[in-house]
Amino acid sequence: MDGPTAFSPDRNVLCLFDVDGTLTRPREKIDPQLDQFFQSLRTKVKIGIVGGSDYPKIAEQLGEGDEVVHKFDYVFAENGTVQFKEGKLISKQAIQNQIGEELLQDLINFCLRYMGLIKLPKKRGTFIEFRSGMINISPIGRSCSQEERIEFSEWDQRERIRERFVDALQEEFAGKGLRFTTGGLISFDIFPEGWDKRLCLEVLERESLDTIYFFGNETSEGGNDYEIFNDPRTVGFTVFTPEDTARLCREMFFSEPPNES
Amino acid sequence: MDGPTAFSPDRNVLCLFDVDGTLTRPREKIDPQLDQFFQSLRTKVKIGIVGGSDYPKIAEQLGEGDEVVHKFDYVFAENGTVQFKEGKLISKQAIQNQIGEELLQDLINFCLRYMGLIKLPKKRGTFIEFRSGMINISPIGRSCSQEERIEFSEWDQRERIRERFVDALQEEFAGKGLRFTTGGLISFDIFPEGWDKRLCLEVLERESLDTIYFFGNETSEGGNDYEIFNDPRTVGFTVFTPEDTARLCREMFFSEPPNES
Ligand SMILES: [Mg+2]
Ligand SMILES: [Mg+2]
Ligand SMILES: [Mg+2]
Ligand SMILES: [Mg+2]
Repeated sequence: MDGPTAFSPDRNVLCLFDVDGTLTRPREKIDPQLDQFFQSLRTKVKIGIVGGSDYPKIAEQLGEGDEVVHKFDYVFAENGTVQFKEGKLISKQAIQNQIGEELLQDLINFCLRYMGLIKLPKKRGTFIEFRSGMINISPIGRSCSQEERIEFSEWDQRERIRERFVDALQEEFAGKGLRFTTGGLISFDIFPEGWDKRLCLEVLERESLDTIYFFGNETSEGGNDYEIFNDPRTVGFTVFTPEDTARLCREMFFSEPPNES
Repeated sequence: MDGPTAFSPDRNVLCLFDVDGTLTRPREKIDPQLDQFFQSLRTKVKIGIVGGSDYPKIAEQLGEGDEVVHKFDYVFAENGTVQFKEGKLISKQAIQNQIGEELLQDLINFCLRYMGLIKLPKKRGTFIEFRSGMINISPIGRSCSQEERIEFSEWDQRERIRERFVDALQEEFAGKGLRFTTGGLISFDIFPEGWDKRLCLEVLERESLDTIYFFGNETSEGGNDYEIFNDPRTVGFTVFTPEDTARLCREMFFSEPPNES
């Protein structure tokens, strides 16, 4: 086995990981031992991540400062719309270029008016967050405290605030090429149809890799790993925890036949 | 004259500075030479700042990381609602405790609905930002680019978007104890009546200082230094640039009588 810092000369295999629930517990930092393991995996294969969060959040979960782009060969944030290769930002998709300012503003205005009519136990700020490849809508406002987040989430389960909001949007914007997904406790995302994690495969196709193994925890229909997992360009694995992901990779890349050692 | 790191044993005088336009150019970093001058001033008197921006913005303008709280004896952010003394956060006012969740939500909902009816050249995200002592409202959304910021600002000058918005709020919320001020290019602030920069004087009153000199560039009526400048607890100076502020302080604290040197 190679030392932990020597990269294999022909790393033509990529292990591509979802972040939340696959490399880390949702929105938490990576476990230091797992972190070390995935870095040692990098001596054998290329490693990459494709997460739904924005880049600052992913960077915080997987290192200090901007370490993450040096720890992984490829970093894809916001479902692959923000793309880093070998430490450098290579491209960034903008939702306004895809759907146009007109539809974008109709969408934003509909959400503003809709939220202006909802009454909740509490409201804070940042109801609409504009990201590269999506907009994120939060009826309580993203700047709520942890306590307020939980209070909203209980209220939401009872009153189905987000579900009814998405239903109203789906009706109003039917046929306009928009997709809606609810993730986390306090918000949902709106993005152009087709702008799911498969976006990063367009970059990876040009990289002459032999195989792309994809690991994700939400690979069934409606989950945010569903499309990339089922894409013919990847070999997909469903994982249940970060430890599970590491165990699988260890079996695949570190177990040498007994008679060879 | 003392060396630059020795503090005078009885620094019972405080020089309290506004930030934008007084210590720095608006929203920019402090000039390194001025920075050095104000640190040398600290050998003679206590120094403090009271800015309208939030703490992260003020920290970025006046140092690296959290240096600012170690460079100034007192740091007051968000008009004095976020209060640091000798490097430690001592208190933080919350707008929801002052005006109540009910009025706060009425206010937020009114703003959401109002913005949902405005049509602009472009809209982005973060239309309502929740801070400690105020909420900040931006019809284009704070996450716009520099180019979009300027485009909005020109549109706003022609169409009076913010002015008419504030008029509508003043009518709707008359007698509810709210104040509205327009600052910068893309937003305005809403805060409880009386929550202007004088808030920090409540902390400073307990500090047994001999004199509080206040330096600000917006000291006339309607400016955000007006109230504290005119307060009997301060001796106020109007300045025009950061260089002007430094010149004034040099004259006040460094010019020794000619026959004494
Ligand atoms: Mg996941
Ligand atoms: Mg597949
Ligand atoms: Mg000023
Ligand atoms: Mg005064």
